[in-house]
Amino acid sequence: MEDKKQKKFVKEITSKEEDFSQWYTDVILKTDMVDYAPVRGCMVIKPYGYGVWEGIKDVTDRRFKETGHKNAYFPLLIPENFLQKEADHFEGFAPEVLWVTHGGSEKLSERLFIRPTSETIICTMYSKWIKSYRDLPVLMNQWCNVIRWEKTTRPFLRTAEFLWQEGHTVHETYDEAQEETLQMLEIYREVAEDELAMPVILGEKSIGERFAGADKTYTMEAMMYDGKALQAGTSHNLGQNFAKMFNIQFLDRDGKLKYGWSTSWGISTRLIGGIIMVHGDNRGLKMPPRIAPIQVVVLPIASHKEGVMDKAYELFTQLKEDFRVELDDREGYSAGWKFNEWEMKGVPLRLEIGPRDIEKNQVTAVRRDTLEKFTLPLEGLNEKIAEILDDIHDTMFKIAANHRDENTHESIDYDEIKEMAKGIPGFIKTMWCGSEECEEKLKSDTGLTIRCIPFEQKHLGDNCPICGKEAKHMVYIAKAY
Amino acid sequence: MEDKKQKKFVKEITSKEEDFSQWYTDVILKTDMVDYAPVRGCMVIKPYGYGVWEGIKDVTDRRFKETGHKNAYFPLLIPENFLQKEADHFEGFAPEVLWVTHGGSEKLSERLFIRPTSETIICTMYSKWIKSYRDLPVLMNQWCNVIRWEKTTRPFLRTAEFLWQEGHTVHETYDEAQEETLQMLEIYREVAEDELAMPVILGEKSIGERFAGADKTYTMEAMMYDGKALQAGTSHNLGQNFAKMFNIQFLDRDGKLKYGWSTSWGISTRLIGGIIMVHGDNRGLKMPPRIAPIQVVVLPIASHKEGVMDKAYELFTQLKEDFRVELDDREGYSAGWKFNEWEMKGVPLRLEIGPRDIEKNQVTAVRRDTLEKFTLPLEGLNEKIAEILDDIHDTMFKIAANHRDENTHESIDYDEIKEMAKGIPGFIKTMWCGSEECEEKLKSDTGLTIRCIPFEQKHLGDNCPICGKEAKHMVYIAKAY
Repeated sequence: MEDKKQKKFVKEITSKEEDFSQWYTDVILKTDMVDYAPVRGCMVIKPYGYGVWEGIKDVTDRRFKETGHKNAYFPLLIPENFLQKEADHFEGFAPEVLWVTHGGSEKLSERLFIRPTSETIICTMYSKWIKSYRDLPVLMNQWCNVIRWEKTTRPFLRTAEFLWQEGHTVHETYDEAQEETLQMLEIYREVAEDELAMPVILGEKSIGERFAGADKTYTMEAMMYDGKALQAGTSHNLGQNFAKMFNIQFLDRDGKLKYGWSTSWGISTRLIGGIIMVHGDNRGLKMPPRIAPIQVVVLPIASHKEGVMDKAYELFTQLKEDFRVELDDREGYSAGWKFNEWEMKGVPLRLEIGPRDIEKNQVTAVRRDTLEKFTLPLEGLNEKIAEILDDIHDTMFKIAANHRDENTHESIDYDEIKEMAKGIPGFIKTMWCGSEECEEKLKSDTGLTIRCIPFEQKHLGDNCPICGKEAKHMVYIAKAY
Repeated sequence: MEDKKQKKFVKEITSKEEDFSQWYTDVILKTDMVDYAPVRGCMVIKPYGYGVWEGIKDVTDRRFKETGHKNAYFPLLIPENFLQKEADHFEGFAPEVLWVTHGGSEKLSERLFIRPTSETIICTMYSKWIKSYRDLPVLMNQWCNVIRWEKTTRPFLRTAEFLWQEGHTVHETYDEAQEETLQMLEIYREVAEDELAMPVILGEKSIGERFAGADKTYTMEAMMYDGKALQAGTSHNLGQNFAKMFNIQFLDRDGKLKYGWSTSWGISTRLIGGIIMVHGDNRGLKMPPRIAPIQVVVLPIASHKEGVMDKAYELFTQLKEDFRVELDDREGYSAGWKFNEWEMKGVPLRLEIGPRDIEKNQVTAVRRDTLEKFTLPLEGLNEKIAEILDDIHDTMFKIAANHRDENTHESIDYDEIKEMAKGIPGFIKTMWCGSEECEEKLKSDTGLTIRCIPFEQKHLGDNCPICGKEAKHMVYIAKAY
């Protein structure tokens, strides 16, 4: 009977091999991660989805603080004239900002836009606050909502409103700004790989994919199960562009007035979509243990039998000391139904405790990643579980990295690339001359975009496969979310 | 020389006895809590101010989770037609909502407003999610920004945009909703009194001060140093009002379809203003130790002497295990200047370590609340500091409670009340017939408002001093922020 129910359950989620897009929609809705909001392109992040965001925030914010950054909060609304100060930036964001025109029934004297990102307002404040080299570096971050009024949206991956953090720093020298830019990228890599078990490629963005107003944009790119790329976090060296536009000047040690060097960097609720699409399978989600809202679920078996509920509560209390744990003591649901639900929700470890387990002083454990079932002695349980969760993390990372490597190809033959691009080719490593023309041509010919110029270079050939001229870089190209 | 500098410093802050409003402005700006934003009525919360908010969030969120609430996130923008569903609610909020009319250069098909509070959007989602008694209670909360486009604003106390949390719950019965409403008020009391050292009066709001759409609004009211009241947190029993308007129905155990009973409750960045105005003195802020962004500051004295910096770092590292601590190793500032700065910022405990202290295996400590100076042996320092911080909390609470009690009066003579209202009378306990007419008259005659009908009642007389009719309640009246 258990098996039948399991099948019934699994059936409710479309197979990811059959229709990945529908699989994604099924999973996020059925696991109560998110719901569509009655506002175009907006989502409601339900508690289980928001719990993932809280996990990501915790592990990220800790690293920000350890590296000397402090959180602040800047206004949501920005006067129209601010956007016009930085021409490139304006061009990048103006088409997708939302405009506020009235307060109550009165027309505002100047239109305000809702922040799509906060460089303009933050730089305005920085120009007021920064006077001397003693005020530098300024290392601030904010966790907030932003809005980009895009046409095509998908929960977590691309939504009109999303939650993110945006760091904004100012430094005395170019070198310091560059060091900061790369430091934050490395923090993002740690978050992705060491916390979310999501392997990433680090590199620099091509000009066409660069942040509006930046000198350099660095990115981490992850491969989703379907072979598409997800830009999972970016870090920008803004040079003196914003400092000059917003007049951020400081009196340097040599008594001269100089423009500051600034950076900005961000990750968003998009990462939640990444977690789902990297790790999930046809039973549902697989939560990376270090940020899982529920790391361990305790299920009493034959809970009406004497001693079972008491033991389950005891276990729950003991585990709560070290883990995010839930006791499923709901009545009116079969054990099989509960197994399926917690598997679908991707809880890394399920512990069952029934009369036989109690007799033997053990629990029965099931790992979500491998579905392995085994018993664990109650003695030393918390230590053992900590080890298992680490192992689940490592296993999930390895599976994802293997999948990515298997779906990463090398080609410097443009015809071959075009042929591969008829499907979803995964990542293709190829050579590039560095011109925007070839970048554009690649995109219009194939739908593939240059994901990054990876730090880890390999010489695949001398020429750009698109124009035939001398190649400057090896790049990753892929279809992307 | 130290004294002279101190005086110079203190002079920069207007005396609070002289001009409390200017004192407040001086303190919040000079301590880097906040700055005015270049958007009407909006503020920039600087890292030191935001650190206080993070402290408040931590101690509050923990309590929410312990009582079974989970965080979620609902959209910032709400379609116009939602506001019109609940007539009272519409009337309450329509005059101060901001309207979004355009996305990029295109006019939106329906205007959207920025949430002033989220009952309408959340109830819409709840009506979709809630089907059965098994789905209840729904216990959600969100930490977010809201906007109320008010004319007169002051940083923290009343700003167009502010940060808050809003809890929204649905229950099977009236009794459960009422229990929840009071439970959350009690959590707010704990936060205010046990974490912020801010004594509060608990009670019910009069009809005139009730939340738009609520059956009952409960409040905690704190007295600021100048004798004015601050509404520091509210909890609303919404009855079935929103459930009926938004069609939140569930199939009950008896097989009948019933409307749910809902509550909502919130505290905001306004509490930061409360902390400043309850505890601050003419040297600046006094941070309640349990939420202070910096609990202990370590100051090396004669830091050029051998061993001083090493010992200071050692101390810093040891304290970091248990406290939020900062080591002030800045060069080019005198010890006296630093003393003043940390006093102004209200850090609860300052530890000085110099050659003489090292010799004696001690630190010199100065409490911000009492300015007492004393030495502490290095052995067992962390335990001792924990005790001192608790004592600072208790002392701050007592000072605030005494100040409030000294400025709380009883009167049932309307002429006397009117006379007292020519200044700031503090809290006046009086009797009230319960009519909106008398509430309105009191306000227009005196500028005083009914802060609450406190849970702790006292029979001061038989009649309402305003109309002379039979009194129903004892109330607190005061001028309010």
